[in-house]
Order: sequence, then C-alpha cells, then structure tokens
Amino acid sequence: MGGKASVDLRQHPGCTWYENGQSALSGSLLELFRRFDRLFVEWAKESGAGEYSFPVFIPAHELAKLDYFGSFPHLVTFPVTLDPEPANLESFARSFAGPGAPLGPGGAIRLTRPAAIRDVLTPAACYHFYIRFQGETLEAPRVVTTLATCFRREAHYTPLERQWSFSMREIVCIGSEGEVKQFLAKYRESLDAFFRRIGLPIAWANATDPFFNPSRNPKSIMQRIEPVKTEMVFGGRLAVGSINFHQNYFGEVFGLRRAGKAAYSGCVAFGLERWISAFLTHFGWEQSDWPDIEMT
Amino acid sequence: MGGKASVDLRQHPGCTWYENGQSALSGSLLELFRRFDRLFVEWAKESGAGEYSFPVFIPAHELAKLDYFGSFPHLVTFPVTLDPEPANLESFARSFAGPGAPLGPGGAIRLTRPAAIRDVLTPAACYHFYIRFQGETLEAPRVVTTLATCFRREAHYTPLERQWSFSMREIVCIGSEGEVKQFLAKYRESLDAFFRRIGLPIAWANATDPFFNPSRNPKSIMQRIEPVKTEMVFGGRLAVGSINFHQNYFGEVFGLRRAGKAAYSGCVAFGLERWISAFLTHFGWEQSDWPDIEMT
Repeated sequence: MGGKASVDLRQHPGCTWYENGQSALSGSLLELFRRFDRLFVEWAKESGAGEYSFPVFIPAHELAKLDYFGSFPHLVTFPVTLDPEPANLESFARSFAGPGAPLGPGGAIRLTRPAAIRDVLTPAACYHFYIRFQGETLEAPRVVTTLATCFRREAHYTPLERQWSFSMREIVCIGSEGEVKQFLAKYRESLDAFFRRIGLPIAWANATDPFFNPSRNPKSIMQRIEPVKTEMVFGGRLAVGSINFHQNYFGEVFGLRRAGKAAYSGCVAFGLERWISAFLTHFGWEQSDWPDIEMT
Repeated sequence: MGGKASVDLRQHPGCTWYENGQSALSGSLLELFRRFDRLFVEWAKESGAGEYSFPVFIPAHELAKLDYFGSFPHLVTFPVTLDPEPANLESFARSFAGPGAPLGPGGAIRLTRPAAIRDVLTPAACYHFYIRFQGETLEAPRVVTTLATCFRREAHYTPLERQWSFSMREIVCIGSEGEVKQFLAKYRESLDAFFRRIGLPIAWANATDPFFNPSRNPKSIMQRIEPVKTEMVFGGRLAVGSINFHQNYFGEVFGLRRAGKAAYSGCVAFGLERWISAFLTHFGWEQSDWPDIEMT
C-alpha cells in the first residue's frame, strides 16, 4: 500500500489540474469517481431515495431567503452575461478584434455592460430540494438524492481537495425531528462500518459552516453552541463528507410542513474529489492495491 | 403512440422547469437521459474513445485564441465573484442585512466590486479537448468523449429544447483529414441506421454556427460556402445533434499535429435534453410505448 504520504495528484495521468482551481478526470480516476458515486446512490436507495438532476444555477431570490449573501459573500459565484443590446455586444466583440487579442493582466477579461444578475452557481447540492419542494406538506418523510457540481471561491486551491468547483453527492431527508434524527443516525452507523471494512482512517469531528465574519454571525455562533455539522475527517486534515442536522431551518424558510409543524431536515454529503484524494493517499495509486468498495 | 403534437414538458412529473431557462430531471426522464447517454458512450467506445470529465469553467485566454468573444458575445456566460477585499465583501453582505432583503427589479442582485474575470462557462463540450491536448503531436488518430453541461444565453428559453444550460455528449476525433472524414462518415451511417431502427423521423440539414453579426463574420460566411455542420433535425424544427467537420482549424490554433501537418478534427454532438423532448413528442409519455433504444 502507498501509505499516508501526501501525493501530488497533478502527476497522476487520470487527473488534469487547471490553474483556475478545477480538475478534469479520466481513466482510473474517473472510474473511481463513478464507483464511489454508485456506492452513495446504493446507500440512498436503501432509504428509498428518489434521484434528481438539478441545473447549475439557483435563482438569487431563493438563496436570499436563507441570508446566503450576508453569510457567504466570500464564496459565491454569479453567472454573468452581457446586456444583449446590439451596440453593447458590438462594443465587447470589437475589443477582441482578431484572434489572440491581448487580455488584461493575468488573462482578465473586460466586460461591457452586464445584463441583470439574477442567479448564483450552486453552492451546495441540497438547497435545490428545499426550493423544489417549497410550500409542500409531506404525508411521510421524504428521502431524496442528487449529485451536483458545487462552486465556492477560495483564496487557494489544491487538486481534488479544495477547488472552485467540485462534485457533491447528497442524501437528504425531510420529515419530523425524529425521522430526520433516525435517518442521520443510520448513516453515521453505516459509514462507520464502511470505513472500518475498507480500512480508511476517518475520524468524526464537529464543525461549523465557513461563515463570513463568523464571530459576528448569529448563525455561526448558534452552530458552535449546538453542533449541526459532523465531518468525516481523513488523516486529521481533510473532510471527505459531513452529516448535517438543519433542525427546522429550511422547513421554516421554505414553508415545508410535516406532521403539523415546520419540517426538519438533514443531509449526508460526500465530496467526490476528496474521496478520491483520501483513497489514493491512503491506498496508493495502483488499482491492484485498492480495497473493494462495492457493497457486500 | 402519442403522435407528433407538441407537448408541454412542464406538465411532466419528471421535469421541473425554472424561469431562468433550466430544467431538473427525475424519475423516468432522468432514467431516459441516462439510457441515451449510455448509448452514446457505447458508440464512442466502439471507436476506442477514452472518456473525460471536464470542469465547468474554461480559461478566457484559451477561448480568446478562437476569437470566441468576437464571434459569440451574445451567448457567453462568465463566472463572477466579488473582490475578496474584506470591506468590499462587508459592503455586499450589509446590503442583504436580514433574510429576505429585497432584491432589485425581477430579483436582480447588485454586486459590489467584482474580482478579475478570467473564465467562461463551457459553451461547447469539445473545446476542452483541444485545450487539454494542445501542443501534442499525435502518433495515431485520437478519439475521445465527454458529457458536459454547456451554457448559452438566449433571448427565450423552452423546456428541454432551448435552455441557458444543457447537457452535451460529444465524440471527438483528432487526426489526419482522411481519418477524421472516415470517423464522421461512420457515425453518420450508424445514426441513420439507429433512427430507422427506432422509427424516429430525423432529417439531416446543413447548418452554420450561431455567429454574432453573421453577415459580417468571415467565419460565418466561410461556413456557408463550405458546410461544416450537419444537424440531425427532428420534426423539421429541432436539432437534436450535429456532425461537425472543423478542418484543421483547432489543430492550427492549438498546435495539434498529425502526420507532419496541423491536425484535423471533427465531432459528433448530442443534445441530451433535446433527445428527450423529441423522443417524448414522437413516442408519447408512456414508457410502455417507447421503443428499445439499447444496442442489439
């Protein structure tokens, strides 16, 4: 086995690293990505989860209901287009006359007048569900799953570990407080058994979301008083996933009801690229050294 | 069978339509999406294609080499973040003080100072390959495939048919002129056989890329003199895919060499959401009425 030494995944033939904080996968790493995701989907289906595939953009007015912009202005990425007025487009196009026209410092591009900005690139997979189901009264707990590309701007990026865009599989439960707690406890137990079986050293650790100005944000303070996020930490440094108990926060904001009250929710989240990084760091690059991750 | 009448896919339980020109899929439509994509991947593997999964952003300086910004300023979407200087973030966050703070007209959001913009949301899947392989001299033709979410801003959107973001599977060949022509001819023949077998009425039609100011763009004029794009048109109105012969354009721009010359390239592109729309329009919404699309 390859041991726990840090490895530079930029050297792996199945990983292409881009200076803009993203990676491409191919070959054995793309196959490993899919094996992990199939495993997560099987776990989701054990809970009867329906699967959804969501678009990349979320309307800003939906995230505003969560005070997302006050809480995470440092992370957010917006999709911006040019005002379609012909002279505005013409002016932009002209500034690039001819191929290879010089860009600004560091390849920066100068926009002409932007169109109104009404959307945000998905910051976390599970937001899609609360928005999709808003206003519903649930007759039973609802378990759903999705794989989403998520976007978080960071000061520095590291291949497969900290990226501007990354892949997050979530299994989400919306229901009563008891139903959600039971759902989360079940996954915590299954995950413990899985990590033991394949021999991946994961420790659970309480964490908070990366709020802007955490010491002044009431939600951040609340998270430290009553932990809502428990991370699966590999090698004492890399969270490959988390179990999150949201109380009835999303239920209240999005008018989701269960058993006569605002619904509770919780999710199990897996960062696919980080699973690959932890797996390769621990088991090495040789496929023949990798444990069987499929369910038995 | 449901016949060819236009159907409002917003009513389908497996489709969620968003006013921002995107859709979510679940249930039978997500399953159909995956069946089509498995089929396209099988076709790609018949040509020995390696598969890649690319990130959402492409560096602007790479697309500038193709005069992308002069040719398609009306379509492009940029990922924009806020300048991370703390006072700038603070000012943005403060403008959203409290949940549900009002946005501008139509849900528009007002940014404070943006950070430098250096990237573009993927406009077409195959660009990733020419950028990834640039500068290489190929010892043999190279066939590769990827599924990418692509982004094109339009004046109006229609569910599954014209979206701000949509899913494109491409099979790409980079090689000599003869190798690329042979590759494209083979897929044209296979596709004809497939459409006949399942009974989907598709006509081939020459087309041009949607250039800005086409009558003044030399590349657009060139495309009309020597057709490079042949579309698979369903019902006389909806292009569900295309076969594209790029000559040695990408080879020259990105320094790709084959057999002592700038490499030629071509691609077969499938718009997944449009395949679903054409399929449901022609065969109806009942899964039991659908033909078997798997390879025999």
